[in-house]
Amino acid sequence: MTPTAILLVHCSDQKGLVASVTTFLATHQANILDLDQHVDTSMNMFFMRVSWDLRGFALNEADFRSRFNSEIAHPHQMTWDLYFDAEPPRFAVFVSSLPHCLVDLLGQFHLQIPVVISNHADLGDIARRFDVPFHHILVSAQNKPHAEAEQLDILKSHGVEAVVLARYMQIVSPEFIDHFPNKIINIHHSFLPAFPGAKPYHSAYHRGVKIIGATSHFVTAELDAGPIIEQDVVRVDHRDEIDDLVRKGRELEKRVLSRAIWAYSERRILCYGNKTVVF
Amino acid sequence: MTPTAILLVHCSDQKGLVASVTTFLATHQANILDLDQHVDTSMNMFFMRVSWDLRGFALNEADFRSRFNSEIAHPHQMTWDLYFDAEPPRFAVFVSSLPHCLVDLLGQFHLQIPVVISNHADLGDIARRFDVPFHHILVSAQNKPHAEAEQLDILKSHGVEAVVLARYMQIVSPEFIDHFPNKIINIHHSFLPAFPGAKPYHSAYHRGVKIIGATSHFVTAELDAGPIIEQDVVRVDHRDEIDDLVRKGRELEKRVLSRAIWAYSERRILCYGNKTVVF
Amino acid sequence: MTPTAILLVHCSDQKGLVASVTTFLATHQANILDLDQHVDTSMNMFFMRVSWDLRGFALNEADFRSRFNSEIAHPHQMTWDLYFDAEPPRFAVFVSSLPHCLVDLLGQFHLQIPVVISNHADLGDIARRFDVPFHHILVSAQNKPHAEAEQLDILKSHGVEAVVLARYMQIVSPEFIDHFPNKIINIHHSFLPAFPGAKPYHSAYHRGVKIIGATSHFVTAELDAGPIIEQDVVRVDHRDEIDDLVRKGRELEKRVLSRAIWAYSERRILCYGNKTVVF
Amino acid sequence: MTPTAILLVHCSDQKGLVASVTTFLATHQANILDLDQHVDTSMNMFFMRVSWDLRGFALNEADFRSRFNSEIAHPHQMTWDLYFDAEPPRFAVFVSSLPHCLVDLLGQFHLQIPVVISNHADLGDIARRFDVPFHHILVSAQNKPHAEAEQLDILKSHGVEAVVLARYMQIVSPEFIDHFPNKIINIHHSFLPAFPGAKPYHSAYHRGVKIIGATSHFVTAELDAGPIIEQDVVRVDHRDEIDDLVRKGRELEKRVLSRAIWAYSERRILCYGNKTVVF
Repeated sequence: MTPTAILLVHCSDQKGLVASVTTFLATHQANILDLDQHVDTSMNMFFMRVSWDLRGFALNEADFRSRFNSEIAHPHQMTWDLYFDAEPPRFAVFVSSLPHCLVDLLGQFHLQIPVVISNHADLGDIARRFDVPFHHILVSAQNKPHAEAEQLDILKSHGVEAVVLARYMQIVSPEFIDHFPNKIINIHHSFLPAFPGAKPYHSAYHRGVKIIGATSHFVTAELDAGPIIEQDVVRVDHRDEIDDLVRKGRELEKRVLSRAIWAYSERRILCYGNKTVVF
Repeated sequence: MTPTAILLVHCSDQKGLVASVTTFLATHQANILDLDQHVDTSMNMFFMRVSWDLRGFALNEADFRSRFNSEIAHPHQMTWDLYFDAEPPRFAVFVSSLPHCLVDLLGQFHLQIPVVISNHADLGDIARRFDVPFHHILVSAQNKPHAEAEQLDILKSHGVEAVVLARYMQIVSPEFIDHFPNKIINIHHSFLPAFPGAKPYHSAYHRGVKIIGATSHFVTAELDAGPIIEQDVVRVDHRDEIDDLVRKGRELEKRVLSRAIWAYSERRILCYGNKTVVF
Repeated sequence: MTPTAILLVHCSDQKGLVASVTTFLATHQANILDLDQHVDTSMNMFFMRVSWDLRGFALNEADFRSRFNSEIAHPHQMTWDLYFDAEPPRFAVFVSSLPHCLVDLLGQFHLQIPVVISNHADLGDIARRFDVPFHHILVSAQNKPHAEAEQLDILKSHGVEAVVLARYMQIVSPEFIDHFPNKIINIHHSFLPAFPGAKPYHSAYHRGVKIIGATSHFVTAELDAGPIIEQDVVRVDHRDEIDDLVRKGRELEKRVLSRAIWAYSERRILCYGNKTVVF
Repeated sequence: MTPTAILLVHCSDQKGLVASVTTFLATHQANILDLDQHVDTSMNMFFMRVSWDLRGFALNEADFRSRFNSEIAHPHQMTWDLYFDAEPPRFAVFVSSLPHCLVDLLGQFHLQIPVVISNHADLGDIARRFDVPFHHILVSAQNKPHAEAEQLDILKSHGVEAVVLARYMQIVSPEFIDHFPNKIINIHHSFLPAFPGAKPYHSAYHRGVKIIGATSHFVTAELDAGPIIEQDVVRVDHRDEIDDLVRKGRELEKRVLSRAIWAYSERRILCYGNKTVVF
């Protein structure tokens, strides 16, 4: 694997931003592997992702951080993140009783998944098949603060960066979300904003839609309303009963969630307002 | 063109329905070209569409209607429609100012479109290019009953069977709809039930969806809530501004509307409850 | 689970076929759950799949077979298959070194997969995680007849009905195929007939296609040329290198193969000539 | 409309390319509207498209050309194209007898289509409906050089930049192509490289594919083998006869060709080897 740095930047749009960043990199012998930028004209915001080969790059991480901040980021009031020869993210996976997304993620052996947490015991067997620690933590209206504190302890002890809700049938509290801002990835089994909340396949069936969808999004305090990362659809018709929607939805949920996690892992997502740029 | 009959049937599900209908047809020497049936188990409803070659068929239309009704339909309490060597449907197209769907329909020269009606004068030139009479009828809150009466007169005089709202920016009254039950086909520029009503591309843009859709449906008294005939989608990303959504949407609207009209013309659509069976 | 019978029929098209079959079923009190028929006009062939609820059905399997054959199938020279309250099919999965399809199939716990066979040892660990016997059988040009004999013994001992080649990087001999006619399901990682044979993602990359595909088909003596069961595609662009095609292809292969196996399991596939009807 | 410049660049990949170009632009007060770059690592080639607002830009076209060439392009051995507040491209449309693509293009009133040329008289009526000159030029094996000379004269007299083959059923000679290198856009009614040449819908039908496609590509001397600009697909099944493939294909061809022409008009396409970068 090539040692690589990834820099994510956003700020108000101004003349010369790409030139400033790329000239800084060129001055220090960066060999750019990939560069993508975007201007949201309606918000006048500038977004950029650039990755470069660290072989031959003249700055170490500390020097880069210090000099990039003072010479480029601070003058342009940029918000920025740097991944400098970084480890891949460590994801905790939260599940309830449905195995398909969990198996799909655990079967992607390149993903770092140090722990699985569930409010049901059912999927413990699957986690064990993949040698991943499984914690069964009951969640109820009464014990939620306590249960979430326990979850947070486990996440901390496993060095978890981000949380994947892989058909986790519980609403996460705003306090919990505050510990992982834009770092909790949910898969919702509808084409949001259609059919938020419970039983979207039932709703889709009763509405008589001809296409069903799935949506992966960051979790925010408002249910199923956070920034959308990825969506996809599959065609249905009158022959499809609710069970068929569930079956077709399984493969759809797997692939939409999987793509969102890939984009997150590659550090391709920038959030702003309630939207995402996915480079 | 082979002379063809098409029979559409629906009723409560019972044992032996397919056998009854097909035995009746076989008895009279029908050569079945296509047969499709469906049982909606949640509503216990049976639906069937069968078409046959009229060459060699032993009954004329009047005899078929009389005997099928007394021998098959009445005993099973069927609702049925028959198209016996029938002319294709005659569509009126209602538009406002956007030309893309209108041009697409007029350019499909096999469609019978005897008249175009609009609340704007803009598209008169296009109708004239295709030698189709164009009526400019202003519609306002004040004159709506009068305007709709004028529209109905025109539709009647042109022997119109069904109405296509090809980006017609007016709400049609329940009284008007009553003249064309499940015979007014609208194209809505979103993936319903997401983004009903005005300016769905703007709403989609602000929600940050990764896919946009279009929906063709029969018009009912409730806005954008009638039985869905066809939907399709196209992928968008953060680079797409509202103008791009509009551009991508144009091709999407054309093809979704066009498929819905094809299904209608082929007598493939059965409505029930607020859903469609599209054979 | 409702006890169900499924009947598959094909024969030369004649008047009255649907009536004959459905009248036979109605006479014996069948409650039809699903019926689909198709006439291939270019080949003048009739195809039908009908399923019915066995509760209340008046014939047992032996009687059905005997009477249906003499009264209906024989007079019309039908080819037919019956699944009468049948067990789901037992699949052997053949793999080489790529785990994604294998994990996806084993993770679908409703599938009956009694054995996994591979020409490499790599995936034995995955089979063991799912408690499925794994046989490592080296295949070379020299030992192929012997290796295939060993494979056939294993398949027989596990009561295998059909074989899934889940990215199995070996060509199966015509003799082996003769033991499982239209019962060996392959997943090929291209949109056939484009890019048959080895390294289709490399070929797709070098051709500069904007969409890649995957194809599941029955294996015949001619490589990648058997009857197609299912295909699907995913969009790519100039940013996608071969590794990206491989990554996007993984999810594509999983879902295309999974849908083909579902259709096979539901007894929805009829083969004729070199094509399939998938009801 | 904002006055805009678009610069397209490609060259061997080197460090500092983005910095050089963007610093040059920033020095002269360019407000960048859009920037996209790509490195093809397998060919070590760099590609870039950048557009900027000309309001406030400090150079006129002549000065830009002169200074950019000497300061940036020449030192880096860049190949480049500039569209400086440019008129949209003028397209000639070549057709035979099928109207759908022609109507679709003429109905996009923002396109500049000064002339339609055909080897059949059939579509003259459509061109006249849109007030576009129509030339009927018979092409045969015998008269091809003469016919193409006549076509070239017409293209020249109309100031045509690029040619669209909108289901033109003739092979264009290498000599003709040399006058419009990477400027002849064809729509082929298959998912290339599957089914090149004549009657691809027939071939697709006989092969039993489950998806059909359309491909828009630049025309080169090798039939249906030029750089692919855009592809899309639509699902088919056993119910679809060749006529259905043709019908479904019509909407597919329209949208694929339309997208290719949009990308061309926006100067988003760079060709290299036998591939395209479509920014």
